[in-house]
Amino acid sequence: MTASGALHRIVAAQAAYARCIDDSGGEGWADFFEDDCLYVVTTAENHQQGLQAGLVYADSKGMLKDRIAALNEANIYERHNYRHILGQPLISRVEGDLVWAETAFIVARIMRTGETSLFATGRYIDCYRIGSDHVLLRERKVVCDSNRIDTLLALPL
Amino acid sequence: MTASGALHRIVAAQAAYARCIDDSGGEGWADFFEDDCLYVVTTAENHQQGLQAGLVYADSKGMLKDRIAALNEANIYERHNYRHILGQPLISRVEGDLVWAETAFIVARIMRTGETSLFATGRYIDCYRIGSDHVLLRERKVVCDSNRIDTLLALPL
Amino acid sequence: MTASGALHRIVAAQAAYARCIDDSGGEGWADFFEDDCLYVVTTAENHQQGLQAGLVYADSKGMLKDRIAALNEANIYERHNYRHILGQPLISRVEGDLVWAETAFIVARIMRTGETSLFATGRYIDCYRIGSDHVLLRERKVVCDSNRIDTLLALPL
Repeated sequence: MTASGALHRIVAAQAAYARCIDDSGGEGWADFFEDDCLYVVTTAENHQQGLQAGLVYADSKGMLKDRIAALNEANIYERHNYRHILGQPLISRVEGDLVWAETAFIVARIMRTGETSLFATGRYIDCYRIGSDHVLLRERKVVCDSNRIDTLLALPL
Repeated sequence: MTASGALHRIVAAQAAYARCIDDSGGEGWADFFEDDCLYVVTTAENHQQGLQAGLVYADSKGMLKDRIAALNEANIYERHNYRHILGQPLISRVEGDLVWAETAFIVARIMRTGETSLFATGRYIDCYRIGSDHVLLRERKVVCDSNRIDTLLALPL
Repeated sequence: MTASGALHRIVAAQAAYARCIDDSGGEGWADFFEDDCLYVVTTAENHQQGLQAGLVYADSKGMLKDRIAALNEANIYERHNYRHILGQPLISRVEGDLVWAETAFIVARIMRTGETSLFATGRYIDCYRIGSDHVLLRERKVVCDSNRIDTLLALPL
């Protein structure tokens, strides 16, 4: 796989991932990951210091599904919405069907009252497995720039 | 036309559309549309409920030209500016020379005083007609995430 | 060089440029420029009136290196962070190995307290020199939409 071929596949997968959260309340979100995966939300400070402790930690697709199911039950969707805008992924490494990439993001939060604010900024540090008919996250580390991220993250980032 | 060929053409057309509004006060904006077109600004709530009622509705290029001309006369340009940043379009359907796509957007508003704020977020639901030398909007539905969008939209989204 | 070939190279170079500032405190920033270069930060109003006076002016790679070194000494990095999100570049001209392009940007600022705000919006007006193994800025004019840009720009835009 060439880096340029991988890039187009990753850009499309990331746009679909963002739409899943922003326009479908996260339904099907876990399906962007491999069964055996890692999803972490952390801060730039923690990441820089090599600390594992994050705001969110899940190491299987099952855990991700549980998380979304819990959100559904809590009817938390009623509370607010997100809008992700992503930068261009920077591919750092390609090894067989695995591709490592970093992508900047900005997420706006829209409250039920209509109020819109800048909710989070940061970067995804990802490892993708790219097959002929799928692009799946083996690992997504969401590194938030701010240390003051709402710990009650209602929807995934 | 392949989806990948269409994607590049659409990305370029959308960047030109944003520049027209953000850097040229909307001059020439109507020329991004076909003569027989649909341009609607609505909210996610209305869109989800299938309501036609929107904040803005125009179903011909003539109406779009009138709108921009009215803005010019009102000298409303003096008041503020926009800056659009778009996500990657997700193509949902290709049929002959018609292409349907969805694209996330974030728009900042810059007041004459210099004050900058997040003005609107949402997604474009578009239908493009792509020819050898043109990419024209047959339909653009601007679906705003917030229900509290300034109804006196000075410039188009 | 085709415009489409140039586009991919420029998009990748711009993503690397943004990462350099946002995730590495600007270290190596000057290396995105040619030795003989122009880097200007100005406002849309000044730019429109053809005024040369800007907020920042540097016409050699040496000046850019000095600027970053000064920031390092002032330990100004501790104060805050940026996050750039860029639009798609619009190529206006290709001449030999030189390519002119315009790119919209939004920059968020993250204070050490965690507070995140929309810091600046605008567009880059760039001239790149594209070689087989490099993409260097010969000229970058950062045109900010707002007239109220913090003149104590700690990090480059």
